[in-house]
Amino acid sequence: MSGSSFGKAFQITTFGESHGPAIGVVIQGCPPGLPISQAMIQASLDKRKPGQGPASTKRKEPDVPLILSGTFEGKTTGTPIMIMIENKDAKSRSYTDIASIFRPGHGDYTYHQKFGIRDYRGGGRASARETAARVAAGAVAKLVLDPYQIKIQSYTIGLGGINAKTFDADAIEKNPFKCPDMEAAKRMEKRIELVKSQGDSLGGIVEIKAVNVPAGIGDPVFDKLDADIAKAMMSIGAVKAVEIGAGILASEMTGFENNDPLTLKGFASNHCGGILAGISNGDEIVVRVHVKPIPSISKPQNTLTDKGVPTLISTKGRHDICAIPRINMVCESMLALVLTDHILRQKTLGQKFDPIF
Amino acid sequence: MSGSSFGKAFQITTFGESHGPAIGVVIQGCPPGLPISQAMIQASLDKRKPGQGPASTKRKEPDVPLILSGTFEGKTTGTPIMIMIENKDAKSRSYTDIASIFRPGHGDYTYHQKFGIRDYRGGGRASARETAARVAAGAVAKLVLDPYQIKIQSYTIGLGGINAKTFDADAIEKNPFKCPDMEAAKRMEKRIELVKSQGDSLGGIVEIKAVNVPAGIGDPVFDKLDADIAKAMMSIGAVKAVEIGAGILASEMTGFENNDPLTLKGFASNHCGGILAGISNGDEIVVRVHVKPIPSISKPQNTLTDKGVPTLISTKGRHDICAIPRINMVCESMLALVLTDHILRQKTLGQKFDPIF
Amino acid sequence: MSGSSFGKAFQITTFGESHGPAIGVVIQGCPPGLPISQAMIQASLDKRKPGQGPASTKRKEPDVPLILSGTFEGKTTGTPIMIMIENKDAKSRSYTDIASIFRPGHGDYTYHQKFGIRDYRGGGRASARETAARVAAGAVAKLVLDPYQIKIQSYTIGLGGINAKTFDADAIEKNPFKCPDMEAAKRMEKRIELVKSQGDSLGGIVEIKAVNVPAGIGDPVFDKLDADIAKAMMSIGAVKAVEIGAGILASEMTGFENNDPLTLKGFASNHCGGILAGISNGDEIVVRVHVKPIPSISKPQNTLTDKGVPTLISTKGRHDICAIPRINMVCESMLALVLTDHILRQKTLGQKFDPIF
Amino acid sequence: MSGSSFGKAFQITTFGESHGPAIGVVIQGCPPGLPISQAMIQASLDKRKPGQGPASTKRKEPDVPLILSGTFEGKTTGTPIMIMIENKDAKSRSYTDIASIFRPGHGDYTYHQKFGIRDYRGGGRASARETAARVAAGAVAKLVLDPYQIKIQSYTIGLGGINAKTFDADAIEKNPFKCPDMEAAKRMEKRIELVKSQGDSLGGIVEIKAVNVPAGIGDPVFDKLDADIAKAMMSIGAVKAVEIGAGILASEMTGFENNDPLTLKGFASNHCGGILAGISNGDEIVVRVHVKPIPSISKPQNTLTDKGVPTLISTKGRHDICAIPRINMVCESMLALVLTDHILRQKTLGQKFDPIF
Repeated sequence: MSGSSFGKAFQITTFGESHGPAIGVVIQGCPPGLPISQAMIQASLDKRKPGQGPASTKRKEPDVPLILSGTFEGKTTGTPIMIMIENKDAKSRSYTDIASIFRPGHGDYTYHQKFGIRDYRGGGRASARETAARVAAGAVAKLVLDPYQIKIQSYTIGLGGINAKTFDADAIEKNPFKCPDMEAAKRMEKRIELVKSQGDSLGGIVEIKAVNVPAGIGDPVFDKLDADIAKAMMSIGAVKAVEIGAGILASEMTGFENNDPLTLKGFASNHCGGILAGISNGDEIVVRVHVKPIPSISKPQNTLTDKGVPTLISTKGRHDICAIPRINMVCESMLALVLTDHILRQKTLGQKFDPIF
Repeated sequence: MSGSSFGKAFQITTFGESHGPAIGVVIQGCPPGLPISQAMIQASLDKRKPGQGPASTKRKEPDVPLILSGTFEGKTTGTPIMIMIENKDAKSRSYTDIASIFRPGHGDYTYHQKFGIRDYRGGGRASARETAARVAAGAVAKLVLDPYQIKIQSYTIGLGGINAKTFDADAIEKNPFKCPDMEAAKRMEKRIELVKSQGDSLGGIVEIKAVNVPAGIGDPVFDKLDADIAKAMMSIGAVKAVEIGAGILASEMTGFENNDPLTLKGFASNHCGGILAGISNGDEIVVRVHVKPIPSISKPQNTLTDKGVPTLISTKGRHDICAIPRINMVCESMLALVLTDHILRQKTLGQKFDPIF
Repeated sequence: MSGSSFGKAFQITTFGESHGPAIGVVIQGCPPGLPISQAMIQASLDKRKPGQGPASTKRKEPDVPLILSGTFEGKTTGTPIMIMIENKDAKSRSYTDIASIFRPGHGDYTYHQKFGIRDYRGGGRASARETAARVAAGAVAKLVLDPYQIKIQSYTIGLGGINAKTFDADAIEKNPFKCPDMEAAKRMEKRIELVKSQGDSLGGIVEIKAVNVPAGIGDPVFDKLDADIAKAMMSIGAVKAVEIGAGILASEMTGFENNDPLTLKGFASNHCGGILAGISNGDEIVVRVHVKPIPSISKPQNTLTDKGVPTLISTKGRHDICAIPRINMVCESMLALVLTDHILRQKTLGQKFDPIF
Repeated sequence: MSGSSFGKAFQITTFGESHGPAIGVVIQGCPPGLPISQAMIQASLDKRKPGQGPASTKRKEPDVPLILSGTFEGKTTGTPIMIMIENKDAKSRSYTDIASIFRPGHGDYTYHQKFGIRDYRGGGRASARETAARVAAGAVAKLVLDPYQIKIQSYTIGLGGINAKTFDADAIEKNPFKCPDMEAAKRMEKRIELVKSQGDSLGGIVEIKAVNVPAGIGDPVFDKLDADIAKAMMSIGAVKAVEIGAGILASEMTGFENNDPLTLKGFASNHCGGILAGISNGDEIVVRVHVKPIPSISKPQNTLTDKGVPTLISTKGRHDICAIPRINMVCESMLALVLTDHILRQKTLGQKFDPIF
């Protein structure tokens, strides 16, 4: 049923389990003639690489993307691009003790109920490792976005209940959480250390923005731009809520407050997050995702075995304390994929309209 | 690009503009032999009908669903089911003054940018009237859900900034906002009256639940059950945020707090909202949507004409003050469609597993 | 599973049974701003209308296409176009005697096996009446093809075993079989009269050509242009074989004979039928379809009832003696749909290459 | 636009170029718990392997299928199965002389027109080497067909204009052309030797049959079983015509002759090739494909360079003289894929009907 495919004009299909031989992606619909390189994809992958910062797993995957089809002499050819990443540091041994235990907060039980069989090693297909394939695909998508000068950026506005209160763009790359508020970042670090010492984990909030998205993309009434973004974000393992623009705050405003007036200088506000009636309006696309805490914790939890026997579990594998900041790059990549898909789709309508402001 | 189609195994395709001759839906993949009737669909449509309550438009559409194909002697035949609703009360004259003005908060500008042409009468394709087709399709979807005893219910937990503080199931049908807190409902009514007198409008928060969903549906890694629900909800015009289970609160918990322990009596909590790793776990599916205020208000707003000339607009048409409670039925219908699609998809895997508790 | 949808960028979804209230089609992906009219679609429908010529049924359907969405002030808007044709002359009474008998050569038995229920009136969904929706959609597709000056033409090169031996373009519209050989047409007429008097029916061969198709459309390796054409043609009820270019003769040639040499004046021959490696080469697209005889005959045939009891059947309803020439327009329409879909798909690649000759 | 994907419930996506690092396939929708092994896939690949018989290329590819995802402990898991075949014997040097010349009968010119760039080495994506991925996928599909005891067989009934006149099932594996007529096979061999000595090539005719296909699969009106088979076969590079059942002969019969009467012992004949109204009737599925001669020949041919300059070309690479018998296995695999897809699709309807005879 093609549940591992995403997109219509620019379509990705991912494969692979956390501790199988490899994970990867096949990209269909990428226009020909675009400059592509392993280095470019590597640069994106490095941004979600484990092993960095206080919240991150010690698993060390070089995550080298092998481009095995769809390119010739450094350019895309228009045929399917397959990018594969071998799993080099899979230590299956450390997972065999959980082969028959359902870890709370994980997909163990649901995969068991769905398939009756599961590759339990490192979470198998349900592992966050799968998102490396999305990031590789996102790097290719950006080749399509570049000529439009579309830029996508993400940053962390909440972690473990500590929220950013100021926005300093320069701060984002200066702390390990990509938080635009250095003061909050310091408190996040302390929070992580505390929770780590307790064998527990944390979640957080990521905001993702895209600028220079042309007005007119999105395909109502179901493949609306915001609908596809919501799906893209919610398909990332740990995400439990998605907001567009003012999001949850919009529900408390009046229409007069929430509507974004059109002026000669553009929209006077951006409560809609750059999307009206499912179509981009040319303003900044604004998305927020709420990320649950990492379910793997060493603190003992009650659960059941696959025979229905109560037991305690304490996860010993190498895991992040918080999906942030690694998940940020995954969110950026998913947004890139949605925008690319809809930009290509719009071409079939043959319309090019200049913005009125 | 089939942006007006939704679902893979149970697929709907909608058509129609607010003030065109008709709107409707074609349903593909509905199993044969199910009892279907106009009355059954009518009953669902009546729940989103305009003309009821203090927040609702005075537009009166009988909304009679004509079943024009795919049934025989009162049963579905397995072939495409087309249901059409004629637009009886379309008063195009009252909209001609806004033919060349972009209404803030509406899709006028974005449809113009996308297509270069738009049926401005009553919002055309971007009108909430389009959701009647979704509700008709949802009524058919429920035929598939019934044998599983899956029940879907929605209620209002916020309106214009006033939140329900208690949950009384009996209260839901006893106030015009479907609020489970009668006290809050009274305050909602006052809030609506005030804002109405100011020529303004309101939004709110709807929670939707489904019980008896079997464990094992959802198709990772992209067509996850929560991802498809997020898309389904966000594709409804006024929705700006979607939460699953604990949603935004999950980001503030620790892993130990957020994980739902498995016990012999089932999951000890339901922070995940019935979905783990994109697959149902057998627990209650819990979804919350945040609805923006109706953009059509009589209070004058700044905007531009399609020639880029600044002007003021004061919407005179017949409009709701708040999408709640009419949108509730639309949310229920979209959830029914997602569940039905994934239940049918799961059949292709040939797996039936008994829950362990 | 969307088996009643066809195409990806330009997608049609058909619905309706022969003797239900209506049949019709929803068209998605049609570019906005194209001039559309009922008259234009009517003109196409008239070419497959029953009631003309010696081989045609006496059923008289006015076949008036009602355009119920997706257009505004005479132009397409880019939103789904729904076209409905009401069934005016459905005489259900004349079919009730076959409610429980499987007609040989028809879908009665297979629909029964697939669905367990069937609308037996006039063949239900399996009726050739369904193709009227395809023709209506094809008329819309031609709006996309017109700017390329793509012209599609069909003619009959075989009927009841009598083959055209000469090609006189002017002859095609001068005989009721659209045969380019007037001499053969006369013999076809006699053959039809004889077979009709015997209560039997005939098949034939139709050739369809498209000129001015730009080089470069088709999407290997599965959605090749010829693969999609083969599917399109074989999806027409009576078609049992499809050839592209030299077709079956290609299998007897040597490579030297079959290859089409490139010269400064274009390809020196067109054995490939305008398609190489699944992509158009700019030459004439040439397709041939082999049509089986109409299965409904008054001559008694052995068959079974739905209880498995042997019986004789003699079809009394109003039926064509031969699907030709009505099927010709259906073939043209399907080719138009495939070409339109691929022309729009090609736009997503952003490539425009001038032919080298 | 996902042109390299095929199937809906059981969907394959192929990638790779003839002389790139690897080719392969991702399979989605394969039910979990099926026994899978490299040996099983290898056995299928060996049947299309080059290097055997008088008509086959000397290119030697071990064609070892690496199963890199979707399996665990020898069973399918229900997640995407990725199978990769490395290109070991790619000699790019022997192709550089044709980098700027369009080979007649090949996709060189059309790929150039479509993409503006092409991997010319060994035909790139347009190479028949791509079909190895289809065969690997077909081996997995057979895991789904096995419990139904569905068997697929192919044999050669024409080669270079020499047709089989008798059918001896035992003969098929006793000659290098898989011809059921040993006498014809001998003449085919002589024909091949002669044409080979002339630097030319040949085509032929392959018949493919499937037994034990349950009645009721196929999804009208577009995804009919025969329509999907026609697409599947025509998507194979060299195929120029597809027949179902009586095929082209059906056009010359009368309805009485062509209709297959239902009797207590089953259908009295099988002119329909096991498919009525696009749905299987339980009888043998019969398909015939007409294969054009290999376009690569050493005999000099007129053509153009990519600058439009006339030139002569004489192909020097290692090529088959005839696609038969290697293409036979590809045809079998494509049929297996179509049947598997439709068997899984039928499950969504929840119907199981016993045949009436």
